Amino acid sequence: MEPAERAYARELFERLFAQLSAIGLDAAGATTRLAWTQETAAAERWFEDTARALGLEPERDRNGNLWAWLGERGPGALVTGSHLDSVREGGRFDGALGVVAGFVAVHLAARRLGVVTEDGGPLAAVPLGVVAFADEEGGRFDTPTFGSRALCGALDVEAALARRDRAGVSLSDALAAAGVDPQGIGPDPERLAQVGALVELHIEQDTLLEREGCALALGTGIMPHGRWRVDLQGEAAHAGTTPLELRRDPMLALAAAIVAARSAGAAHGALATVGKLEVSPNATNAVAGRVSFWLDIRAHDEQTVSATLDQVLEATRAQASRDSVGFEQRRESFTAAVEFSPALRARIEAVLSAQGIRTLPISTGAGHDAGTLAATIPTAMLFVRSSGGAGHSPQEHASVDDCLTGIAALVELLTSLETEQSGALADV
Amino acid sequence: MEPAERAYARELFERLFAQLSAIGLDAAGATTRLAWTQETAAAERWFEDTARALGLEPERDRNGNLWAWLGERGPGALVTGSHLDSVREGGRFDGALGVVAGFVAVHLAARRLGVVTEDGGPLAAVPLGVVAFADEEGGRFDTPTFGSRALCGALDVEAALARRDRAGVSLSDALAAAGVDPQGIGPDPERLAQVGALVELHIEQDTLLEREGCALALGTGIMPHGRWRVDLQGEAAHAGTTPLELRRDPMLALAAAIVAARSAGAAHGALATVGKLEVSPNATNAVAGRVSFWLDIRAHDEQTVSATLDQVLEATRAQASRDSVGFEQRRESFTAAVEFSPALRARIEAVLSAQGIRTLPISTGAGHDAGTLAATIPTAMLFVRSSGGAGHSPQEHASVDDCLTGIAALVELLTSLETEQSGALADV
Repeated sequence: MEPAERAYARELFERLFAQLSAIGLDAAGATTRLAWTQETAAAERWFEDTARALGLEPERDRNGNLWAWLGERGPGALVTGSHLDSVREGGRFDGALGVVAGFVAVHLAARRLGVVTEDGGPLAAVPLGVVAFADEEGGRFDTPTFGSRALCGALDVEAALARRDRAGVSLSDALAAAGVDPQGIGPDPERLAQVGALVELHIEQDTLLEREGCALALGTGIMPHGRWRVDLQGEAAHAGTTPLELRRDPMLALAAAIVAARSAGAAHGALATVGKLEVSPNATNAVAGRVSFWLDIRAHDEQTVSATLDQVLEATRAQASRDSVGFEQRRESFTAAVEFSPALRARIEAVLSAQGIRTLPISTGAGHDAGTLAATIPTAMLFVRSSGGAGHSPQEHASVDDCLTGIAALVELLTSLETEQSGALADV
Repeated sequence: MEPAERAYARELFERLFAQLSAIGLDAAGATTRLAWTQETAAAERWFEDTARALGLEPERDRNGNLWAWLGERGPGALVTGSHLDSVREGGRFDGALGVVAGFVAVHLAARRLGVVTEDGGPLAAVPLGVVAFADEEGGRFDTPTFGSRALCGALDVEAALARRDRAGVSLSDALAAAGVDPQGIGPDPERLAQVGALVELHIEQDTLLEREGCALALGTGIMPHGRWRVDLQGEAAHAGTTPLELRRDPMLALAAAIVAARSAGAAHGALATVGKLEVSPNATNAVAGRVSFWLDIRAHDEQTVSATLDQVLEATRAQASRDSVGFEQRRESFTAAVEFSPALRARIEAVLSAQGIRTLPISTGAGHDAGTLAATIPTAMLFVRSSGGAGHSPQEHASVDDCLTGIAALVELLTSLETEQSGALADV
């Protein structure tokens, strides 16, 4: 980007990012925008207002995903974006950065091409769109990548709609309250047919780029990833009267699981995490009667995920057995390894290297909407260098300069496609 | 008791106990009657209806404790009872047994003495009362022995009223909603002056009596007991992207605490329990940012409590330090060792042994209202043999025969005092 264009982009990016960052921000600096809440409704209004202000036409699909279009809608549109929701007490960049960057990049591409519709200029040769997928984090109903899964038919709709949040509200009721008809949730092939390719820009959430001194990465794929639930059934007892040798306390097997997750992860080079627990009755003066915990494992290949899982479950089961505690486990989800479109990646690499924009290849452990859709349409991901590597945390941070480098990459990609012959995306 | 009186007592006991057991019972057989809820309101209506049906006059004191009086109210009344509230998913006997046994025993004593007021008979020489103390378990606001502590001025009223339940309701608001004026909570010396002595009957919650083949125990005292809260401050992070060596995961220090509580308890002959946890953000795909846990320790002497505590905290602190996790701990409560009135115990032993009712002496680790009041008035406790030793659990059980033996002991005690000269309780 030329200095003047970069200064223009910086001003627009900083303004839009500040607007979105203010939504769901608490006094401690943490961001909580759970799906189908007042906070995401406010973020959606921001999306629609921003689209209109930039001359794009916003709309919501029947799965609750938001789209903003420059010109005709397809087929063959080049779409960029991410998501507006966050985890509980998360950061300002995860998801939000990709949506803001998408708006800025599409606006700059239109400016370069003279297709800002309010000026009455010609429409883009390849339709351009910005997307915000619904409920990517799954932080309220434990339904990650809800919107993209529903869109491409990779969601068990009935099971998802029956899920309840901590207050007992079903996803079905939450959707209806947010103005999305639960009956309409499901595969939407007509919508998908409008999209020629999806490029999702996202904060990195790791320290690789920082260590390597590079602002951008091009995703090669997403690691295989599974979530398991383990239920430990002991016997509730009075903490002040029940002798230690008579206790069937499920906490000890939980402790074994936490320790084993760390040691098995380190031994196998996997990421294994116990991050969610439920304890009953959860009272100071009662030996727990029941503990449930959730185990999240990701690794470079499925064999490593399995080996890590086996080691954690075996350690947990052995301790449970010593304490006469019941042990049950079930897989809640499993996502096989994803490879992003080699043709689209090659094209992006060619465009960026011609512009002197360097990227490193990375494979990520995090799930993303671009990963969900990779089986259905050509998708790619650009990662912007994280400062410090935090993710799902208020400490999440990327410098404005690095964000602008990511936006510049998107702009080059969008304009390169526009200046080639129509239908270019059909090649990827 | 003669066979006919025992048959009468059995019928009354079974009927009243079944009525009370039905309140707050869930489909899985667990009892939940938290303080100041619809369930305790229903139990309180049962108390008042039962009192009136047996010719006793019910009233509620300004701390929400319920009393039912046979005849004049004192001074010098002999009062028996326990509490109506339960822990979450607890059993049917804890507290409830003592209240039902109190009603049956006072009724039988009145029958023996011919003072059933509806018959217009003479009043008892020593006033008799049944009591149900409010919020003994503290299961909703973590305010155990609330009613008895408030009554005798052993409660930090301001701090207690500000406490909130899981739904964010303050104790102050919950009291007001239950018809108890929060402004009225506090020491009530006039009420205490009416009570000459308190005898609380309770299920044992241990297996000592079963092992020794004895139906009843006479409490000698309550072990010293403390509760500590430990806050572990790590850093929330993305479970799919954050390398293990960069994590500040507080779960590992929690695991160390759980393991250390068991080993330190075993080493020192103490009861040490981690039964309550809070995790934030408590999400499957997030490394926890913060874990709080509560540690409950009881032992025969305070030195043993301290030694056990030190060992658990040291193990926790060491692991937290290895993971760069912040560690803070504070004592939430401490109850020094309680000795029940030696004079009252001697008197009870003399009456029961004269009637051939055998008791074993036990010191318990559980807190009770009789323990709270022991510093202010003469108190004693009778424990009815538990089948299986469960406590704070739906498995809690005592046989009807053992419950009737406990009731028989109360009847002998009440009538022995009635048939001696007035003012006999002043000796204890």
